[in-house]
Amino acid sequence: MKVDCKIWLDHDGKAFGRGPYELLRRVEETGSLHQAAIQMGMSYSKAWKLIQMIERRLGFPFVDKEVGGASGGGSRVTPEGKAFMKRYGRFEREAMRVIEKAYQKHFGRRSSQRGG
Amino acid sequence: MKVDCKIWLDHDGKAFGRGPYELLRRVEETGSLHQAAIQMGMSYSKAWKLIQMIERRLGFPFVDKEVGGASGGGSRVTPEGKAFMKRYGRFEREAMRVIEKAYQKHFGRRSSQRGG
Repeated sequence: MKVDCKIWLDHDGKAFGRGPYELLRRVEETGSLHQAAIQMGMSYSKAWKLIQMIERRLGFPFVDKEVGGASGGGSRVTPEGKAFMKRYGRFEREAMRVIEKAYQKHFGRRSSQRGG
Repeated sequence: MKVDCKIWLDHDGKAFGRGPYELLRRVEETGSLHQAAIQMGMSYSKAWKLIQMIERRLGFPFVDKEVGGASGGGSRVTPEGKAFMKRYGRFEREAMRVIEKAYQKHFGRRSSQRGG
């Protein structure tokens, strides 16, 4: 037996979680929301709507679209977006760690009569 | 902004969480899986399948059906089921508390530039 969970931030509805975090991480890596969406198995329009939803609920821009230029345009995560991702990543890692610790305390081998 | 989460125990798939806990709590209160299902806005067959799924995945009985008798039958949570519920309840309360604490640490007023 093990513990599993889904965590998200709520601000007038689901505002940020693992999905947006992974999408934005891929935008950072690839410099392209198109490529990031493909890697996530998501349509471009769905990815773009997700970004718009995050921006609306959290109140600041996460993605800058660069139009034209030598590279033919692309997308990058804003400095504010990067700072938020970093904070969220630290929060999520800590949350997973403390949930696992609570699980071990209540259901771990030494305390468990069943499962394990 | 606030944090939200869903926690569950997994044992070859989702094995136990808030839904089963609430259903079983109502079986204890009402002495009837029928009544518990009604209170949860769930069909009796869905509630019964849920109990069977928990029992299969965790490997012990949660509900005893009392057939006939002066009360016309009913259901009650087994002693093992009650012990598991108690343990799960303690685990879940602690998990929610430590997640909130981690959230406050990373996104609380003093550490937050945005939201709050």
